[in-house]
Amino acid sequence: MNIGIIGLGVVGGSFAKAIRAHLNPSHKIMAIDIDEKTIEQALSEGIIDYGETTNQTILQQADLVIIALYPAALINFMQTNNHLFKKGAIVTETTGIKTDMIKALKDLIPDTIDFIFGHPMAGRENRGLDYASAEVFQGSNYLITPTENNQQETINWYASFVEAIGFKRVTFVTADQHDEMIAYTSQLAHIIAVSLINSDLENRNTALFIGDSYRDLTRIAKLNEDLWTELFLANKEELLKAINRFEIKVQDMKEAITNDDRLKMKGYFVESTQRRLKLEHEDSKFTQDSM
Amino acid sequence: MNIGIIGLGVVGGSFAKAIRAHLNPSHKIMAIDIDEKTIEQALSEGIIDYGETTNQTILQQADLVIIALYPAALINFMQTNNHLFKKGAIVTETTGIKTDMIKALKDLIPDTIDFIFGHPMAGRENRGLDYASAEVFQGSNYLITPTENNQQETINWYASFVEAIGFKRVTFVTADQHDEMIAYTSQLAHIIAVSLINSDLENRNTALFIGDSYRDLTRIAKLNEDLWTELFLANKEELLKAINRFEIKVQDMKEAITNDDRLKMKGYFVESTQRRLKLEHEDSKFTQDSM
Repeated sequence: MNIGIIGLGVVGGSFAKAIRAHLNPSHKIMAIDIDEKTIEQALSEGIIDYGETTNQTILQQADLVIIALYPAALINFMQTNNHLFKKGAIVTETTGIKTDMIKALKDLIPDTIDFIFGHPMAGRENRGLDYASAEVFQGSNYLITPTENNQQETINWYASFVEAIGFKRVTFVTADQHDEMIAYTSQLAHIIAVSLINSDLENRNTALFIGDSYRDLTRIAKLNEDLWTELFLANKEELLKAINRFEIKVQDMKEAITNDDRLKMKGYFVESTQRRLKLEHEDSKFTQDSM
Repeated sequence: MNIGIIGLGVVGGSFAKAIRAHLNPSHKIMAIDIDEKTIEQALSEGIIDYGETTNQTILQQADLVIIALYPAALINFMQTNNHLFKKGAIVTETTGIKTDMIKALKDLIPDTIDFIFGHPMAGRENRGLDYASAEVFQGSNYLITPTENNQQETINWYASFVEAIGFKRVTFVTADQHDEMIAYTSQLAHIIAVSLINSDLENRNTALFIGDSYRDLTRIAKLNEDLWTELFLANKEELLKAINRFEIKVQDMKEAITNDDRLKMKGYFVESTQRRLKLEHEDSKFTQDSM
Protein backbone atom coordinates (compact mmCIF):
# COMPACT_ATOMS: atom_id res chain seq x y z
CA MET A 1 0.00 0.00 0.00
CA ASN A 2 1.12 3.55 -0.74
CA ILE A 3 0.55 5.76 2.29
CA GLY A 4 0.77 9.53 2.03
CA ILE A 5 1.17 11.62 5.16
CA ILE A 6 0.51 15.33 4.90
CA GLY A 7 2.37 17.31 7.55
CA LEU A 8 5.25 15.70 9.46
CA GLY A 9 4.60 17.34 12.81
CA VAL A 10 4.24 15.39 16.01
CA VAL A 11 1.01 13.72 14.82
CA GLY A 12 1.97 13.05 11.19
CA GLY A 13 5.47 12.01 12.24
CA SER A 14 4.07 9.61 14.83
CA PHE A 15 1.77 8.08 12.21
CA ALA A 16 4.78 7.50 9.96
CA LYS A 17 6.85 5.98 12.75
CA ALA A 18 3.99 3.85 14.08
CA ILE A 19 3.17 2.51 10.61
CA ARG A 20 6.83 1.67 10.10
CA ALA A 21 7.12 0.03 13.52
CA HIS A 22 3.88 -1.92 13.64
CA LEU A 23 2.81 -2.73 10.07
CA ASN A 24 4.13 -4.60 7.09
CA PRO A 25 7.47 -3.01 6.15
CA SER A 26 6.56 -3.20 2.46
CA HIS A 27 4.15 -0.27 2.78
CA LYS A 28 5.57 2.74 0.98
CA ILE A 29 5.40 5.81 3.23
CA MET A 30 5.44 9.14 1.44
CA ALA A 31 5.12 12.54 3.04
CA ILE A 32 4.51 16.16 2.18
CA ASP A 33 5.80 18.83 4.54
CA ILE A 34 6.36 22.49 3.73
CA ASP A 35 9.67 22.34 5.56
CA GLU A 36 12.47 20.97 3.39
CA LYS A 37 14.60 20.15 6.44
CA THR A 38 11.83 18.07 8.00
CA ILE A 39 11.57 16.01 4.81
CA GLU A 40 15.35 15.56 4.73
CA GLN A 41 15.39 14.50 8.38
CA ALA A 42 12.52 12.04 7.89
CA LEU A 43 14.27 10.52 4.88
CA SER A 44 17.65 10.25 6.59
CA GLU A 45 16.07 8.65 9.66
CA GLY A 46 14.25 6.18 7.44
CA ILE A 47 10.84 7.31 8.69
CA ILE A 48 9.59 7.88 5.14
CA ASP A 49 10.53 6.45 1.76
CA TYR A 50 9.85 9.56 -0.25
CA GLY A 51 9.09 13.21 0.44
CA GLU A 52 8.00 16.43 -1.21
CA THR A 53 7.50 20.00 0.04
CA THR A 54 4.46 20.51 -2.19
CA ASN A 55 2.53 17.78 -3.92
CA GLN A 56 4.11 16.58 -7.13
CA THR A 57 3.28 12.89 -7.30
CA ILE A 58 2.27 11.71 -3.84
CA LEU A 59 -1.49 12.31 -3.87
CA GLN A 60 -1.70 10.70 -7.31
CA GLN A 61 -0.14 7.50 -5.90
CA ALA A 62 -1.42 7.21 -2.34
CA ASP A 63 -4.08 4.63 -1.46
CA LEU A 64 -4.34 6.09 2.04
CA VAL A 65 -3.75 9.77 2.78
CA ILE A 66 -3.45 10.92 6.38
CA ILE A 67 -3.71 14.70 6.58
CA ALA A 68 -2.14 15.75 9.87
CA LEU A 69 -2.54 19.51 9.52
CA TYR A 70 -4.10 22.20 11.73
CA PRO A 71 -7.72 23.07 10.86
CA ALA A 72 -7.03 26.14 8.71
CA ALA A 73 -4.13 24.45 6.92
CA LEU A 74 -6.29 21.37 6.27
CA ILE A 75 -9.00 23.44 4.61
CA ASN A 76 -6.39 25.28 2.58
CA PHE A 77 -4.75 21.99 1.55
CA MET A 78 -8.08 20.56 0.38
CA GLN A 79 -8.87 23.72 -1.59
CA THR A 80 -5.56 23.50 -3.41
CA ASN A 81 -5.21 19.75 -3.87
CA ASN A 82 -8.64 18.12 -3.84
CA HIS A 83 -8.54 17.30 -7.55
CA LEU A 84 -5.29 15.33 -7.24
CA PHE A 85 -6.29 12.34 -5.11
CA LYS A 86 -6.09 8.87 -6.66
CA LYS A 87 -9.52 7.47 -7.53
CA GLY A 88 -10.75 5.24 -4.71
CA ALA A 89 -8.26 6.62 -2.19
CA ILE A 90 -9.09 6.68 1.52
CA VAL A 91 -8.31 10.12 2.91
CA THR A 92 -8.50 11.08 6.56
CA GLU A 93 -7.95 14.16 8.69
CA THR A 94 -6.97 14.38 12.35
CA THR A 95 -8.25 17.69 13.74
CA GLY A 96 -9.87 18.17 17.12
CA ILE A 97 -13.17 19.63 15.85
CA LYS A 98 -15.78 17.98 13.73
CA THR A 99 -19.03 19.97 13.21
CA ASP A 100 -17.26 23.00 11.74
CA MET A 101 -14.74 20.89 9.87
CA ILE A 102 -17.35 18.71 8.18
CA LYS A 103 -19.16 21.87 7.09
CA ALA A 104 -15.96 23.50 5.86
CA LEU A 105 -14.89 20.48 3.78
CA LYS A 106 -18.37 19.50 2.55
CA ASP A 107 -17.92 20.91 -0.96
CA LEU A 108 -14.20 20.18 -1.15
CA ILE A 109 -14.35 16.38 -0.98
CA PRO A 110 -14.53 14.78 -4.43
CA ASP A 111 -16.91 11.83 -5.01
CA THR A 112 -13.97 9.69 -6.07
CA ILE A 113 -12.46 9.31 -2.59
CA ASP A 114 -13.69 8.08 0.78
CA PHE A 115 -12.95 10.84 3.29
CA ILE A 116 -12.91 9.88 6.98
CA PHE A 117 -13.16 12.42 9.77
CA GLY A 118 -11.05 11.14 12.65
CA HIS A 119 -9.48 12.35 15.88
CA PRO A 120 -6.51 10.58 17.46
CA MET A 121 -6.72 11.42 21.18
CA ALA A 122 -2.97 11.45 21.62
CA GLY A 123 -0.24 13.94 21.13
CA ARG A 124 2.52 15.80 22.77
CA GLU A 125 2.65 19.30 24.12
CA ASN A 126 5.83 19.76 22.07
CA ARG A 127 5.70 20.40 18.35
CA GLY A 128 7.50 18.89 15.43
CA LEU A 129 8.98 15.69 14.09
CA ASP A 130 11.55 15.52 16.91
CA TYR A 131 8.76 14.72 19.34
CA ALA A 132 7.06 12.15 17.11
CA SER A 133 7.32 8.55 18.22
CA ALA A 134 6.03 5.14 17.23
CA GLU A 135 4.65 4.66 20.74
CA VAL A 136 2.72 7.90 21.30
CA PHE A 137 -0.54 6.26 20.18
CA GLN A 138 -0.22 3.21 22.45
CA GLY A 139 -3.27 2.83 24.64
CA SER A 140 -5.00 5.93 23.26
CA ASN A 141 -8.55 6.59 22.14
CA TYR A 142 -9.49 7.23 18.51
CA LEU A 143 -12.71 8.93 17.53
CA ILE A 144 -14.25 8.56 14.08
CA THR A 145 -17.17 10.66 12.91
CA PRO A 146 -18.79 8.86 9.99
CA THR A 147 -20.65 10.90 7.38
CA GLU A 148 -23.36 9.74 4.97
CA ASN A 149 -20.74 9.55 2.25
CA ASN A 150 -18.57 6.97 4.00
CA GLN A 151 -18.61 3.31 3.02
CA GLN A 152 -19.12 1.24 6.18
CA GLU A 153 -16.40 -1.19 5.13
CA THR A 154 -13.90 1.62 4.60
CA ILE A 155 -14.57 2.94 8.07
CA ASN A 156 -14.24 -0.51 9.59
CA TRP A 157 -10.98 -1.02 7.74
CA TYR A 158 -9.62 2.29 8.98
CA ALA A 159 -10.63 1.44 12.55
CA SER A 160 -8.61 -1.77 12.30
CA PHE A 161 -5.74 0.16 10.78
CA VAL A 162 -5.44 2.62 13.69
CA GLU A 163 -5.75 -0.22 16.18
CA ALA A 164 -2.93 -2.01 14.40
CA ILE A 165 -0.64 1.00 14.88
CA GLY A 166 -1.35 1.22 18.61
CA PHE A 167 -4.68 2.87 19.42
CA LYS A 168 -6.53 0.80 21.95
CA ARG A 169 -10.08 1.80 21.25
CA VAL A 170 -11.98 3.29 18.33
CA THR A 171 -15.33 4.95 18.95
CA PHE A 172 -17.77 6.09 16.28
CA VAL A 173 -19.54 9.32 17.23
CA THR A 174 -21.62 12.01 15.62
CA ALA A 175 -20.03 15.41 15.04
CA ASP A 176 -22.18 16.94 17.79
CA GLN A 177 -21.26 14.26 20.31
CA HIS A 178 -17.61 14.60 19.41
CA ASP A 179 -17.55 18.36 19.86
CA GLU A 180 -19.56 18.28 23.08
CA MET A 181 -17.24 15.69 24.66
CA ILE A 182 -14.03 17.26 23.40
CA ALA A 183 -15.11 20.65 24.74
CA TYR A 184 -15.03 19.01 28.14
CA THR A 185 -12.23 16.45 28.09
CA SER A 186 -9.70 18.35 26.00
CA GLN A 187 -10.56 22.01 25.52
CA LEU A 188 -11.69 22.76 29.09
CA ALA A 189 -8.62 20.92 30.38
CA HIS A 190 -6.43 23.29 28.38
CA ILE A 191 -8.35 26.38 29.55
CA ILE A 192 -7.83 25.21 33.14
CA ALA A 193 -4.11 24.58 32.73
CA VAL A 194 -3.60 28.00 31.14
CA SER A 195 -5.67 29.78 33.79
CA LEU A 196 -3.91 27.96 36.63
CA ILE A 197 -0.41 28.90 35.57
CA ASN A 198 -1.43 32.43 34.55
CA SER A 199 -2.97 32.99 37.99
CA ASP A 200 0.42 32.60 39.67
CA LEU A 201 1.80 35.79 41.19
CA GLU A 202 5.08 36.92 39.68
CA ASN A 203 8.51 36.52 41.21
CA ARG A 204 7.79 33.99 43.87
CA ASN A 205 10.00 31.13 42.81
CA THR A 206 7.11 28.76 42.31
CA ALA A 207 9.32 25.89 41.09
CA LEU A 208 10.61 25.41 44.63
CA PHE A 209 7.10 24.69 45.88
CA ILE A 210 5.68 22.27 43.36
CA GLY A 211 4.91 18.60 43.46
CA ASP A 212 3.66 16.28 40.74
CA SER A 213 0.10 17.65 40.97
CA TYR A 214 1.14 21.10 39.77
CA ARG A 215 3.52 19.63 37.20
CA ASP A 216 0.71 17.47 35.79
CA LEU A 217 -1.91 20.21 35.83
CA THR A 218 0.26 22.72 33.97
CA ARG A 219 1.91 20.40 31.43
CA ILE A 220 -0.58 21.37 28.72
CA ALA A 221 -0.31 25.09 29.56
CA LYS A 222 2.48 24.99 26.98
CA LEU A 223 0.43 25.07 23.83
CA ASN A 224 0.36 26.34 20.26
CA GLU A 225 -1.55 29.62 20.46
CA ASP A 226 -2.65 29.63 16.83
CA LEU A 227 -3.95 26.06 16.80
CA TRP A 228 -5.80 26.31 20.09
CA THR A 229 -7.36 29.68 19.32
CA GLU A 230 -8.74 28.08 16.13
CA LEU A 231 -9.97 24.98 17.96
CA PHE A 232 -11.63 26.91 20.79
CA LEU A 233 -13.45 29.34 18.52
CA ALA A 234 -14.58 26.55 16.20
CA ASN A 235 -16.30 24.91 19.18
CA LYS A 236 -17.20 28.03 21.10
CA GLU A 237 -20.74 27.18 22.19
CA GLU A 238 -19.91 23.77 23.67
CA LEU A 239 -16.72 25.06 25.24
CA LEU A 240 -18.51 27.91 27.01
CA LYS A 241 -21.06 25.45 28.37
CA ALA A 242 -18.26 23.23 29.71
CA ILE A 243 -16.48 26.21 31.30
CA ASN A 244 -19.72 27.32 32.95
CA ARG A 245 -20.37 23.90 34.44
CA PHE A 246 -16.82 23.81 35.78
CA GLU A 247 -17.11 27.31 37.25
CA ILE A 248 -20.24 26.30 39.14
CA LYS A 249 -18.38 23.41 40.78
CA VAL A 250 -15.50 25.68 41.79
CA GLN A 251 -18.03 28.14 43.17
CA ASP A 252 -19.78 25.39 45.18
CA MET A 253 -16.45 24.32 46.63
CA LYS A 254 -15.53 27.90 47.52
CA GLU A 255 -18.81 28.32 49.31
CA ALA A 256 -18.36 25.12 51.30
CA ILE A 257 -14.83 26.17 52.32
CA THR A 258 -15.98 29.68 53.24
CA ASN A 259 -18.71 28.22 55.45
CA ASP A 260 -16.48 25.52 57.00
CA ASP A 261 -19.04 23.08 55.63
CA ARG A 262 -17.07 19.89 56.20
CA LEU A 263 -19.96 17.67 55.22
CA LYS A 264 -20.34 19.28 51.79
CA MET A 265 -16.59 19.33 51.20
CA LYS A 266 -16.24 15.65 52.02
CA GLY A 267 -19.21 14.92 49.79
CA TYR A 268 -17.48 16.61 46.83
CA PHE A 269 -14.27 14.68 47.49
CA VAL A 270 -16.03 11.34 47.84
CA GLU A 271 -17.84 12.04 44.56
CA SER A 272 -14.65 13.02 42.72
CA THR A 273 -12.85 9.96 44.06
CA GLN A 274 -15.64 7.66 42.90
CA ARG A 275 -15.76 9.33 39.49
CA ARG A 276 -12.02 9.03 39.03
CA LEU A 277 -12.04 5.36 40.06
CA LYS A 278 -14.86 4.70 37.60
CA LEU A 279 -12.92 6.52 34.88
CA GLU A 280 -9.80 4.45 35.55
CA HIS A 281 -11.88 1.31 35.36
CA GLU A 282 -13.53 2.30 32.07
CA ASP A 283 -10.28 3.62 30.64
CA SER A 284 -8.54 0.33 31.27
CA LYS A 285 -11.05 -1.58 29.18
CA PHE A 286 -10.08 -2.33 25.61
CA THR A 287 -13.21 -2.20 23.49
CA GLN A 288 -14.11 -1.35 19.96
CA ASP A 289 -16.96 0.24 18.11
CA SER A 290 -18.97 1.63 20.97
CA MET A 291 -21.34 3.35 18.60
CA MET B 1 21.32 5.64 64.18
CA ASN B 2 17.94 4.57 65.48
CA ILE B 3 15.19 5.93 63.25
CA GLY B 4 11.56 5.85 64.31
CA ILE B 5 8.81 6.28 61.75
CA ILE B 6 5.33 7.04 62.99
CA GLY B 7 2.66 5.96 60.53
CA LEU B 8 3.52 3.53 57.73
CA GLY B 9 1.28 5.00 55.07
CA VAL B 10 2.52 6.01 51.67
CA VAL B 11 4.72 8.79 53.10
CA GLY B 12 6.06 6.99 56.18
CA GLY B 13 6.49 3.76 54.21
CA SER B 14 8.41 5.60 51.48
CA PHE B 15 10.68 7.15 54.12
CA ALA B 16 11.41 3.67 55.46
CA LYS B 17 12.09 2.23 52.02
CA ALA B 18 14.17 5.20 50.86
CA ILE B 19 16.30 5.13 54.03
CA ARG B 20 16.84 1.42 53.55
CA ALA B 21 17.68 1.84 49.86
CA HIS B 22 19.88 4.92 49.99
CA LEU B 23 21.53 5.08 53.41
CA ASN B 24 23.87 3.02 55.53
CA PRO B 25 22.16 -0.36 56.09
CA SER B 26 23.24 -0.33 59.72
CA HIS B 27 20.56 2.25 60.63
CA LYS B 28 17.89 0.59 62.72
CA ILE B 29 14.46 1.43 61.33
CA MET B 30 11.59 1.16 63.79
CA ALA B 31 7.97 2.00 63.12
CA ILE B 32 4.71 2.59 64.92
CA ASP B 33 1.48 2.01 63.01
CA ILE B 34 -1.96 1.47 64.51
CA ASP B 35 -2.55 -1.33 62.02
CA GLU B 36 -1.02 -4.61 63.17
CA LYS B 37 -1.10 -6.03 59.63
CA THR B 38 0.86 -3.08 58.27
CA ILE B 39 3.57 -3.67 60.87
CA GLU B 40 3.64 -7.38 60.03
CA GLN B 41 3.89 -6.65 56.32
CA ALA B 42 6.68 -4.10 56.82
CA LEU B 43 8.61 -6.57 58.97
CA SER B 44 8.17 -9.46 56.55
CA GLU B 45 9.23 -7.28 53.60
CA GLY B 46 12.28 -6.15 55.53
CA ILE B 47 11.28 -2.51 55.32
CA ILE B 48 11.61 -2.09 59.09
CA ASP B 49 13.62 -3.85 61.78
CA TYR B 50 11.10 -3.49 64.56
CA GLY B 51 7.49 -2.40 64.90
CA GLU B 52 4.82 -1.55 67.45
CA THR B 53 1.14 -0.60 67.20
CA THR B 54 1.43 1.85 70.07
CA ASN B 55 4.64 3.18 71.49
CA GLN B 56 6.33 0.84 73.92
CA THR B 57 10.03 1.43 73.41
CA ILE B 58 10.54 3.14 70.07
CA LEU B 59 10.34 6.81 71.04
CA GLN B 60 12.66 6.15 73.98
CA GLN B 61 15.31 4.80 71.58
CA ALA B 62 14.96 6.84 68.40
CA ASP B 63 17.55 9.49 67.54
CA LEU B 64 15.42 10.64 64.61
CA VAL B 65 11.62 10.43 64.63
CA ILE B 66 9.70 11.03 61.40
CA ILE B 67 6.02 11.50 62.13
CA ALA B 68 4.13 10.81 58.93
CA LEU B 69 0.60 11.31 60.22
CA TYR B 70 -2.33 13.47 59.08
CA PRO B 71 -2.62 16.83 60.86
CA ALA B 72 -5.22 15.81 63.47
CA ALA B 73 -3.48 12.49 64.17
CA LEU B 74 -0.15 14.28 64.52
CA ILE B 75 -1.53 16.65 67.16
CA ASN B 76 -3.12 13.73 68.95
CA PHE B 77 0.12 11.74 68.83
CA MET B 78 2.08 14.63 70.32
CA GLN B 79 -0.47 15.11 73.08
CA THR B 80 -0.21 11.46 74.05
CA ASN B 81 3.50 10.82 73.56
CA ASN B 82 5.43 14.06 73.87
CA HIS B 83 7.00 13.08 77.18
CA LEU B 84 8.51 9.89 75.74
CA PHE B 85 11.07 11.20 73.23
CA LYS B 86 14.72 10.47 73.87
CA LYS B 87 16.65 13.51 75.11
CA GLY B 88 18.34 15.25 72.16
CA ALA B 89 16.20 13.50 69.56
CA ILE B 90 15.44 15.16 66.24
CA VAL B 91 11.72 14.91 65.56
CA THR B 92 10.03 15.99 62.35
CA GLU B 93 6.52 16.09 60.92
CA THR B 94 5.42 16.00 57.30
CA THR B 95 2.05 17.73 57.02
CA GLY B 96 1.02 20.11 54.26
CA ILE B 97 0.20 23.08 56.50
CA LYS B 98 2.51 25.06 58.71
CA THR B 99 1.02 28.19 60.35
CA ASP B 100 -1.78 26.30 62.07
CA MET B 101 0.41 23.30 62.82
CA ILE B 102 3.16 25.34 64.47
CA LYS B 103 0.50 27.02 66.62
CA ALA B 104 -1.13 23.70 67.49
CA LEU B 105 2.13 22.02 68.52
CA LYS B 106 3.69 25.06 70.21
CA ASP B 107 3.03 23.89 73.76
CA LEU B 108 3.40 20.21 72.98
CA ILE B 109 7.07 20.19 71.97
CA PRO B 110 9.38 19.48 74.92
CA ASP B 111 12.61 21.50 75.30
CA THR B 112 14.61 18.29 75.20
CA ILE B 113 14.10 17.62 71.48
CA ASP B 114 14.71 19.53 68.25
CA PHE B 115 11.41 19.54 66.36
CA ILE B 116 11.54 20.31 62.62
CA PHE B 117 8.49 21.31 60.61
CA GLY B 118 8.91 19.88 57.13
CA HIS B 119 6.90 19.14 54.02
CA PRO B 120 7.97 16.53 51.47
CA MET B 121 6.39 17.63 48.18
CA ALA B 122 5.86 14.10 46.97
CA GLY B 123 3.28 11.46 47.45
CA ARG B 124 0.85 9.23 45.72
CA GLU B 125 -2.87 9.60 45.23
CA ASN B 126 -3.20 6.08 46.60
CA ARG B 127 -2.99 5.37 50.31
CA GLY B 128 -1.10 2.87 52.33
CA LEU B 129 2.15 0.97 52.55
CA ASP B 130 1.46 -0.89 49.30
CA TYR B 131 2.00 2.35 47.39
CA ALA B 132 5.15 3.35 49.27
CA SER B 133 8.38 3.16 47.31
CA ALA B 134 12.03 4.02 47.75
CA GLU B 135 11.88 6.15 44.61
CA VAL B 136 8.82 8.31 45.23
CA PHE B 137 10.98 11.14 46.59
CA GLN B 138 13.42 11.19 43.68
CA GLY B 139 13.62 14.65 42.16
CA SER B 140 11.10 16.17 44.57
CA ASN B 141 11.05 19.40 46.53
CA TYR B 142 11.30 19.50 50.32
CA LEU B 143 10.19 22.51 52.34
CA ILE B 144 11.44 23.18 55.85
CA THR B 145 9.94 25.85 58.07
CA PRO B 146 12.47 26.65 60.78
CA THR B 147 11.25 27.96 64.13
CA GLU B 148 13.16 29.98 66.72
CA ASN B 149 13.66 26.79 68.69
CA ASN B 150 15.58 24.96 65.98
CA GLN B 151 19.33 24.58 66.08
CA GLN B 152 20.74 25.71 62.71
CA GLU B 153 23.05 22.69 62.56
CA THR B 154 20.17 20.28 63.17
CA ILE B 155 18.22 21.81 60.32
CA ASN B 156 21.22 21.66 58.02
CA TRP B 157 21.78 18.04 58.97
CA TYR B 158 18.15 17.16 58.27
CA ALA B 159 18.31 18.94 54.89
CA SER B 160 21.28 16.74 53.95
CA PHE B 161 19.46 13.70 55.23
CA VAL B 162 16.41 14.21 52.97
CA GLU B 163 18.66 14.95 50.02
CA ALA B 164 20.48 11.71 50.69
CA ILE B 165 17.24 9.74 50.45
CA GLY B 166 16.28 11.31 47.12
CA PHE B 167 14.86 14.82 47.43
CA LYS B 168 16.52 17.10 44.95
CA ARG B 169 16.04 20.44 46.62
CA VAL B 170 15.42 21.69 50.13
CA THR B 171 14.02 25.17 50.63
CA PHE B 172 13.73 26.97 53.97
CA VAL B 173 10.57 29.07 54.17
CA THR B 174 8.51 30.87 56.78
CA ALA B 175 5.17 29.36 57.76
CA ASP B 176 3.30 32.17 55.96
CA GLN B 177 5.28 31.71 52.76
CA HIS B 178 4.77 27.97 52.92
CA ASP B 179 1.02 28.20 53.34
CA GLU B 180 0.61 30.90 50.70
CA MET B 181 2.56 28.88 48.11
CA ILE B 182 0.98 25.54 48.97
CA ALA B 183 -2.49 27.07 48.72
CA TYR B 184 -1.64 27.70 45.09
CA THR B 185 0.57 24.83 43.95
CA SER B 186 -1.06 21.99 45.83
CA GLN B 187 -4.43 22.91 47.32
CA LEU B 188 -5.81 24.87 44.34
CA ALA B 189 -4.61 22.08 42.04
CA HIS B 190 -6.71 19.61 44.03
CA ILE B 191 -9.77 21.90 44.03
CA ILE B 192 -9.45 22.16 40.25
CA ALA B 193 -9.12 18.42 39.68
CA VAL B 194 -12.15 17.73 41.88
CA SER B 195 -14.24 20.44 40.21
CA LEU B 196 -13.26 19.29 36.73
CA ILE B 197 -14.30 15.69 37.22
CA ASN B 198 -17.41 16.63 39.21
CA SER B 199 -18.54 18.94 36.39
CA ASP B 200 -18.86 16.02 33.99
CA LEU B 201 -22.40 15.20 32.98
CA GLU B 202 -23.51 11.71 33.97
CA ASN B 203 -23.81 8.70 31.69
CA ARG B 204 -21.84 9.90 28.74
CA ASN B 205 -19.06 7.35 28.61
CA THR B 206 -16.35 9.93 29.16
CA ALA B 207 -13.55 7.36 29.19
CA LEU B 208 -13.94 6.90 25.44
CA PHE B 209 -13.16 10.56 24.82
CA ILE B 210 -10.13 11.24 26.98
CA GLY B 211 -6.49 11.81 26.19
CA ASP B 212 -3.56 12.28 28.52
CA SER B 213 -4.57 15.86 29.38
CA TYR B 214 -7.77 14.76 31.08
CA ARG B 215 -6.03 11.77 32.68
CA ASP B 216 -3.35 14.07 34.12
CA LEU B 217 -5.75 16.77 35.27
CA THR B 218 -8.03 14.37 37.15
CA ARG B 219 -5.40 12.05 38.67
CA ILE B 220 -5.52 13.91 42.01
CA ALA B 221 -9.34 14.03 42.01
CA LYS B 222 -8.97 10.71 43.83
CA LEU B 223 -8.18 11.98 47.30
CA ASN B 224 -8.64 11.29 50.98
CA GLU B 225 -11.65 13.35 51.95
CA ASP B 226 -10.79 13.60 55.64
CA LEU B 227 -7.19 14.67 55.12
CA TRP B 228 -7.94 17.25 52.45
CA THR B 229 -10.89 18.75 54.30
CA GLU B 230 -8.52 19.28 57.24
CA LEU B 231 -5.77 20.74 55.05
CA PHE B 232 -8.08 23.10 53.16
CA LEU B 233 -9.78 24.47 56.28
CA ALA B 234 -6.45 24.88 58.06
CA ASN B 235 -5.33 27.16 55.23
CA LYS B 236 -8.68 28.64 54.33
CA GLU B 237 -7.71 32.27 53.86
CA GLU B 238 -4.81 31.67 51.48
CA LEU B 239 -6.72 28.98 49.61
CA LEU B 240 -9.69 31.26 48.98
CA LYS B 241 -7.32 33.93 47.63
CA ALA B 242 -5.75 31.42 45.27
CA ILE B 243 -9.15 30.19 44.07
CA ASN B 244 -10.26 33.78 43.44
CA ARG B 245 -7.18 34.59 41.38
CA PHE B 246 -7.74 31.43 39.33
CA GLU B 247 -11.42 32.22 38.81
CA ILE B 248 -10.52 35.66 37.45
CA LYS B 249 -8.26 34.07 34.83
CA VAL B 250 -10.98 31.62 33.78
CA GLN B 251 -13.39 34.54 33.58
CA ASP B 252 -10.97 36.55 31.41
CA MET B 253 -10.58 33.59 29.08
CA LYS B 254 -14.33 33.08 28.84
CA GLU B 255 -14.80 36.72 27.96
CA ALA B 256 -12.15 36.56 25.24
CA ILE B 257 -13.75 33.43 23.76
CA THR B 258 -17.26 34.92 23.94
CA ASN B 259 -16.02 38.02 22.08
CA ASP B 260 -13.95 36.09 19.52
CA ASP B 261 -11.03 38.11 20.81
CA ARG B 262 -8.25 36.17 19.11
CA LEU B 263 -5.59 38.65 20.15
CA LYS B 264 -6.39 38.31 23.84
CA MET B 265 -6.69 34.53 23.61
CA LYS B 266 -3.32 34.20 21.91
CA GLY B 267 -1.84 36.54 24.51
CA TYR B 268 -3.03 34.25 27.32
CA PHE B 269 -1.62 31.18 25.56
CA VAL B 270 1.73 32.80 24.85
CA GLU B 271 1.94 33.84 28.50
CA SER B 272 1.04 30.36 29.79
CA THR B 273 3.55 28.77 27.44
CA GLN B 274 6.32 31.10 28.60
CA ARG B 275 5.43 30.51 32.25
CA ARG B 276 5.44 26.75 31.82
CA LEU B 277 8.79 26.83 29.99
CA LYS B 278 10.25 28.96 32.78
CA LEU B 279 8.84 26.55 35.36
CA GLU B 280 10.40 23.57 33.59
CA HIS B 281 13.71 25.38 33.49
CA GLU B 282 13.61 26.29 37.18
CA ASP B 283 12.30 22.86 38.15
CA SER B 284 15.19 21.13 36.42
CA LYS B 285 17.77 23.00 38.51
CA PHE B 286 19.14 21.17 41.50
CA THR B 287 19.81 23.74 44.18
CA GLN B 288 19.81 23.85 47.92
CA ASP B 289 18.91 26.27 50.64
CA SER B 290 17.20 28.95 48.63
CA MET B 291 16.22 30.80 51.78
